[in-house]
Amino acid sequence: MGAINGKDFIDRLNQQKTEIWYNGKKIEGNISEHPAFKGIIHTKASLYDLQNEPSLTGQMTFKSPITGNPVGISYLQPKTKEDLKKRRKMIKIWAKHTNGMMGRSPDYMNTAIMSFASTENILKGKENCFPENIIALYERALEEDLSFTHTLITPQVNRAHLYFEDSKDPIAAKVIDQNEKGIVIKGARLLATQGGITDEVLVYSAPGLFDPSEAFAFSIPSDTKGLKFICRESFVGGESAFDHPLSSKYEEMDTVIVFDNVLVPWDRVFFYDNVEASNIFILQSSFYPNAIHQVITRQVVKIEFLLGIAELLVQTINVGEYQHIQEKLSEIIVGLETMKALADKSETHAEIDEWGNIRPCYIPLQAASVIFPRLYPRFCEIIQLIGASGMVTLPSEKDFHSKLRTDLDQYLQGASKDAEDRVKIFRLAWDLTMSSFGTRQIHYERYFFGDPIRLAGKLYKSYPLDGLVGKVNDFLNLKDK
Amino acid sequence: MGAINGKDFIDRLNQQKTEIWYNGKKIEGNISEHPAFKGIIHTKASLYDLQNEPSLTGQMTFKSPITGNPVGISYLQPKTKEDLKKRRKMIKIWAKHTNGMMGRSPDYMNTAIMSFASTENILKGKENCFPENIIALYERALEEDLSFTHTLITPQVNRAHLYFEDSKDPIAAKVIDQNEKGIVIKGARLLATQGGITDEVLVYSAPGLFDPSEAFAFSIPSDTKGLKFICRESFVGGESAFDHPLSSKYEEMDTVIVFDNVLVPWDRVFFYDNVEASNIFILQSSFYPNAIHQVITRQVVKIEFLLGIAELLVQTINVGEYQHIQEKLSEIIVGLETMKALADKSETHAEIDEWGNIRPCYIPLQAASVIFPRLYPRFCEIIQLIGASGMVTLPSEKDFHSKLRTDLDQYLQGASKDAEDRVKIFRLAWDLTMSSFGTRQIHYERYFFGDPIRLAGKLYKSYPLDGLVGKVNDFLNLKDK
Amino acid sequence: MGAINGKDFIDRLNQQKTEIWYNGKKIEGNISEHPAFKGIIHTKASLYDLQNEPSLTGQMTFKSPITGNPVGISYLQPKTKEDLKKRRKMIKIWAKHTNGMMGRSPDYMNTAIMSFASTENILKGKENCFPENIIALYERALEEDLSFTHTLITPQVNRAHLYFEDSKDPIAAKVIDQNEKGIVIKGARLLATQGGITDEVLVYSAPGLFDPSEAFAFSIPSDTKGLKFICRESFVGGESAFDHPLSSKYEEMDTVIVFDNVLVPWDRVFFYDNVEASNIFILQSSFYPNAIHQVITRQVVKIEFLLGIAELLVQTINVGEYQHIQEKLSEIIVGLETMKALADKSETHAEIDEWGNIRPCYIPLQAASVIFPRLYPRFCEIIQLIGASGMVTLPSEKDFHSKLRTDLDQYLQGASKDAEDRVKIFRLAWDLTMSSFGTRQIHYERYFFGDPIRLAGKLYKSYPLDGLVGKVNDFLNLKDK
Amino acid sequence: MGAINGKDFIDRLNQQKTEIWYNGKKIEGNISEHPAFKGIIHTKASLYDLQNEPSLTGQMTFKSPITGNPVGISYLQPKTKEDLKKRRKMIKIWAKHTNGMMGRSPDYMNTAIMSFASTENILKGKENCFPENIIALYERALEEDLSFTHTLITPQVNRAHLYFEDSKDPIAAKVIDQNEKGIVIKGARLLATQGGITDEVLVYSAPGLFDPSEAFAFSIPSDTKGLKFICRESFVGGESAFDHPLSSKYEEMDTVIVFDNVLVPWDRVFFYDNVEASNIFILQSSFYPNAIHQVITRQVVKIEFLLGIAELLVQTINVGEYQHIQEKLSEIIVGLETMKALADKSETHAEIDEWGNIRPCYIPLQAASVIFPRLYPRFCEIIQLIGASGMVTLPSEKDFHSKLRTDLDQYLQGASKDAEDRVKIFRLAWDLTMSSFGTRQIHYERYFFGDPIRLAGKLYKSYPLDGLVGKVNDFLNLKDK
Repeated sequence: MGAINGKDFIDRLNQQKTEIWYNGKKIEGNISEHPAFKGIIHTKASLYDLQNEPSLTGQMTFKSPITGNPVGISYLQPKTKEDLKKRRKMIKIWAKHTNGMMGRSPDYMNTAIMSFASTENILKGKENCFPENIIALYERALEEDLSFTHTLITPQVNRAHLYFEDSKDPIAAKVIDQNEKGIVIKGARLLATQGGITDEVLVYSAPGLFDPSEAFAFSIPSDTKGLKFICRESFVGGESAFDHPLSSKYEEMDTVIVFDNVLVPWDRVFFYDNVEASNIFILQSSFYPNAIHQVITRQVVKIEFLLGIAELLVQTINVGEYQHIQEKLSEIIVGLETMKALADKSETHAEIDEWGNIRPCYIPLQAASVIFPRLYPRFCEIIQLIGASGMVTLPSEKDFHSKLRTDLDQYLQGASKDAEDRVKIFRLAWDLTMSSFGTRQIHYERYFFGDPIRLAGKLYKSYPLDGLVGKVNDFLNLKDK
Repeated sequence: MGAINGKDFIDRLNQQKTEIWYNGKKIEGNISEHPAFKGIIHTKASLYDLQNEPSLTGQMTFKSPITGNPVGISYLQPKTKEDLKKRRKMIKIWAKHTNGMMGRSPDYMNTAIMSFASTENILKGKENCFPENIIALYERALEEDLSFTHTLITPQVNRAHLYFEDSKDPIAAKVIDQNEKGIVIKGARLLATQGGITDEVLVYSAPGLFDPSEAFAFSIPSDTKGLKFICRESFVGGESAFDHPLSSKYEEMDTVIVFDNVLVPWDRVFFYDNVEASNIFILQSSFYPNAIHQVITRQVVKIEFLLGIAELLVQTINVGEYQHIQEKLSEIIVGLETMKALADKSETHAEIDEWGNIRPCYIPLQAASVIFPRLYPRFCEIIQLIGASGMVTLPSEKDFHSKLRTDLDQYLQGASKDAEDRVKIFRLAWDLTMSSFGTRQIHYERYFFGDPIRLAGKLYKSYPLDGLVGKVNDFLNLKDK
Repeated sequence: MGAINGKDFIDRLNQQKTEIWYNGKKIEGNISEHPAFKGIIHTKASLYDLQNEPSLTGQMTFKSPITGNPVGISYLQPKTKEDLKKRRKMIKIWAKHTNGMMGRSPDYMNTAIMSFASTENILKGKENCFPENIIALYERALEEDLSFTHTLITPQVNRAHLYFEDSKDPIAAKVIDQNEKGIVIKGARLLATQGGITDEVLVYSAPGLFDPSEAFAFSIPSDTKGLKFICRESFVGGESAFDHPLSSKYEEMDTVIVFDNVLVPWDRVFFYDNVEASNIFILQSSFYPNAIHQVITRQVVKIEFLLGIAELLVQTINVGEYQHIQEKLSEIIVGLETMKALADKSETHAEIDEWGNIRPCYIPLQAASVIFPRLYPRFCEIIQLIGASGMVTLPSEKDFHSKLRTDLDQYLQGASKDAEDRVKIFRLAWDLTMSSFGTRQIHYERYFFGDPIRLAGKLYKSYPLDGLVGKVNDFLNLKDK
Repeated sequence: MGAINGKDFIDRLNQQKTEIWYNGKKIEGNISEHPAFKGIIHTKASLYDLQNEPSLTGQMTFKSPITGNPVGISYLQPKTKEDLKKRRKMIKIWAKHTNGMMGRSPDYMNTAIMSFASTENILKGKENCFPENIIALYERALEEDLSFTHTLITPQVNRAHLYFEDSKDPIAAKVIDQNEKGIVIKGARLLATQGGITDEVLVYSAPGLFDPSEAFAFSIPSDTKGLKFICRESFVGGESAFDHPLSSKYEEMDTVIVFDNVLVPWDRVFFYDNVEASNIFILQSSFYPNAIHQVITRQVVKIEFLLGIAELLVQTINVGEYQHIQEKLSEIIVGLETMKALADKSETHAEIDEWGNIRPCYIPLQAASVIFPRLYPRFCEIIQLIGASGMVTLPSEKDFHSKLRTDLDQYLQGASKDAEDRVKIFRLAWDLTMSSFGTRQIHYERYFFGDPIRLAGKLYKSYPLDGLVGKVNDFLNLKDK
């Protein structure tokens, strides 16, 4: 089969009978026609279509080592710096197509699965571990171009340092039973973005857990019995691309996943009941380097989009002469150049790991993942500060097609744009930074890799400081060195 | 007549045939039943009802000096510090009733009209000035408890330093003709909050304009012929107070006002064709001191609401032990105490002006108006940072009334709250800081008194620095002193 | 005796044979002539002289309730708001005389001693407590106008959360013995500012300690046997007031205090071996409210000085037209107004405590003490940013008295000042913000009341939040209230 | 001759009879023995010695294309990316030897001269331009290993936007005459760092000037007749490396340069009386790319030094467990990684310019030069915040060699260091961030390439934004593209 197109993707989704709850009701009928999902599903489909566009297919796919079919490059296990560049180019094409606004474009999860499969060896021979199932998943995903969501966070009941769940029934998803067919899961997981609108769900745990019953990993189809996806309110503002240029296309939905005695067949289980495996699965695999490499490639495109919008606002109301506006724009430029340089360095300094795959250099990527959660909210704020009162006077597409047209044309014109274009630009700026969709994006980027304060702590603790301390020791001639 | 109640207010509104455009259509029927206006109109009505609540009427009204009727205290011209305190108490009652979320509760504009009337003398004897019409407006407003919006900003076409409009037809509203009946206005004004849902519109100009045809002030009924209110998209999220606890009640709507050859009768005109009058009308009247006094009283209540929410979040997920959480909460506390202290000082240092009215001391109020636009967005960010992933997992009222109930109860419980209360709290935090309603509030507070950078410049230029410079001169024994 | 003058102060100091170590040597001879101490001692003497200046004596002193002698108002136990104002006026006179630069002007410690004496009752009847000795100290201090330093911080060996000292010999000062004459102290205390150049040393402990042997309080003469003061490097830049306008006058010196088996006579001991007493001595006494009241009165004067300097720089090189300069100046203004308003409110909302004394309202003072450590370093940075390259081209007084004079006059002139005045102004700005003296001042203000992060936590934990949370509970109709 | 050693450098300096004024006196005798210059001159000499150290000479020098002598690699005109790396390695060796603390290590000016010589063609055939003199300078500098300072800023008389000097006598240095021997300069220039202690002075102008008489460039020996260097106060704290580990070695001195009718021989003039030449000389030459490449290589080493110190402080007092400390350290780490990535990218994306030399890619370097002035002061603040009270209790070397030793050893010990090492570490932290030397370094880095606000504006104005705006235009389907 190999790389699919948009229609393949949509058809497959509609055939699944996934249990998705939205606003108190179970969704019936084709998910691709539901107002809350239509936009994102069609945007995602347009990504798959690019794979088959003759001018792009060479950059988007490679020959499957198994079947020779053309398959998506995000599945490519990189062996050389050239491979990394190929991966980045492909990721960029999808990111540019969606202006960096789709957090869970398929390449993100493809990259995750490729990474776990590349380092499956770390589970080899360990108790309750089945690395062969990871390989099987990878091959299936590669050949069928499966789409995924994943979920790794437990419910936010109590965030104190030393909280241990003492509920009689599980809250965080746990293995509550096992039988000849597989393991049985009960409980919940938070925050699967695009939950319910992917072929499968990859389930594993964030590092640092204590309870073996929570230490597992597997992937199962979204319509597995007992699996429920509970949606939040949709942030699609409406269907008009004029009024809601972003949310009409890019609103991805987040879901809580409930496991109601879900049976995970043995051949789907990567490991279970093994706390150590759970930790090394994430920390020693190439997941983080490859995933952040994908993420910051997308984020660079997103900043470029944002910078283009900022400059368009500046031109529209002609405020480029103000020193504080220049400072604000240069702040975005510096952030963009920083992210680009860190991405660049992760490739030029990439190294082969012990399993023969090349890994993007991790430290610059870590730095990027600590920075971006601070940059993105600030850049959105800058856009609001440039837009000022213009962010509020936002007539709609229908207003422009009503008798008001003459008034709007006269009174809402910009210095360098007519009223319609001016309003389009400001509505875009608003949808990016002030709509419920926009603020969810801010929050999403802020927490992409978890609590920024913990990320900072992690970076500090893992950073090679000994050499630098040693140099100061030498300079001061201290006793112990 | 005197202080009205909620029903009076709604009836009067519904009787007006104001031309309000929403999403390409002219609104027909009772405005109080329109989904975009229903919430705010009924909330406003509930404020008027408080005036007639026996336990409050003594604090809410005073005897009209003209008719002896009980009239709203926000119309009281303060002569003593005691009067200022009375005013503040009344403002606080309304603010607490609406949690500080209604930017244009009636007391704001009542205060404006009271201030202009208190200092009408500054226009006496000046060309094209009719201070007696201000007095007439004040008396009418006082006795009939009229509601107002106002508008003073010109369209944001070009914000360069030295931009002069050169459009053939007016863009910014201008006097284009005058006749025996009055002056004729054509053009637009930006950003009348609650435009169309008040009895009258007060129109005047921000200081600093150059073109005499833009230098005017008057008040006319909202349904004056030729007056059009063009709405932005409504940010009412829905009618459920569970799902949209704030926007269902407090979304105020902003409008562009178009003057389509509007005739303003002579007895409504305060002045026209007089640039100097236009400047002193705002800068020398007691408008700013009294208006900021009202505004920061409300903003203090708003911070208190926000701080209560922040602490409730902290308790719900039990994160109060974290040092960075403590720092964030204390940041809000310090902001609150600062605003309170500045408000306090504006009263304790108030002074009688040359027209015999007492004015809240202006400098602390200016300081408050420079600070709050920075505090409020930051405090909203703090709430998002405390809420973290909880700001995204937001099931709806209907979810809680569906079969999902058991799942939600189990998986969304908080450390100190059951799931339903927990979700209510997070939805409130979300509506305050992340819904389209919430971000518009942030923007609104940020620009309440105009561009914060210009406000800062204004404060610097008007601040008494000579004495401080003199002290340093003395210390250094400089030559010229 | 009563309020002394400068000569009294200096004579008394010189008569003491205090053991002060400076740069590897014990200081011999008159301390008032030592280059590292001369400036500060004479500046302090000039403060005492003000007490006897006929035009000021009425504002500086009150009649001793014991002897009827005129004594310093900083010793006045306030009973009314009027008393608080009197205190503030007096404090301000001394602060203005020293431009707010003397952290330990005598009123600070006088206020501390007055506060402890006002609330000595809290120790009454408690084990190992001798409140009568506090009263005795107060009366002696009042009548003899004694000067003090104090010390409450233990050595910074290990700042981990759960560090317990396990050294064989004491590091932190401890009671190691007691006999019929008194208690014997061994160990060290950090950071007595002006240590060695005051009549006495007040020794007590910061709240929160665990070890009873560290829980004591007393006051002893600086030249008590076994007491050593170890100085840091002096930051007096030189004697020229042209070159070092601040450090030549205001450098206060900080010392480590070593207790080498110091015997503290029983009649000097306030309490010992009582952890509870140690905590309430500080936390329940009126120490913090009165001390912060003194401190922020001084800090307001210091910001005024700084603002005067900032504006003088702006004028000197004519940069007032720049928007970012206006913003920076307004930032200082807003900080100043905030501190003033908080100080003001602490007085207008003062209340009588259970011992019949009035206390400045504590919460606004706490807010001020959390803010100032952030404001002051930022304001110093602003001065550096205004001064720019001018902060580096700093010829000396001797340069101006050399053949270079003509060159300097021509090339270092400012827009509104001749070269000599211009250089004086920039040297002042430099000494305030960039000399070793200036940076120590920044550090001193930053840590005046301890670690700013802990102060923030303390404010949060003590702030009355229940009412605010209750209001939100009501608004949301939550179950448990 | 070629690459010199330290002795060569010192001897040559002492032979010059440069007119340097310090504290009102002309310096007589060997400059290398003057307390204010001794440290820096010997440190600089140690850099030259490295050129001749056998193990390093291969990395420090290359064969002169003219004479075949080994000459300093900072003079190498790069033709390949390999050359850029060679340059960077050499720069790093010198930077590491001085911990990044010497702003004007010889490679900085060598790089400048190499750059101007590489692009001398841009002056070819232009009026009053003598590019051959640049080549001559380059060859002389290369072969004789000359040291330089430069000066380009005019006196800070009046910094208003539209200030034109109207003094009768020149303030800013100007050509006031020309004759057969050369041009005659009168006036002053600001801020030549290391002025007077280099072989020559390179004089040119910052871009953007208007007055042709100020538009010139040349290089002359420091002891040219009429040239005076006026020093600021020295920030050498003393000779003890224990007490003043940095200022005793790295204090560079800044000077005002006075031109008292200085005759610049024709063969030293690069151009004069040509405003256009003055602009392109800096803006089109490879000066900025190569200079910033040198500068950020040094600054990276400086951050590494600072990070080592920060971590050493953390270990010494054992505060690494605190989350806010971890955040602060990670903030430095992220800054370091950012600077490194930008430097890296400037090399990997370097391109050959029209004169056949390779230039480091400019945009990442510009970003770095906008960032570092904000990072460095913040990192110094972080060090102060970690050090806390330990930054003040700073006994001296002599204290440790006195009877106090036992006390100090006991009371000033750290968690992981004995007292002597602990004090050394804190004194280093203090000298880096709080001594007059340290604050001057902060100021120096902040203004290295000029006013940071203008740098930001320059970056914005030169950044390629059209493509990004175009993408948004396309996304919105705007009319004009």
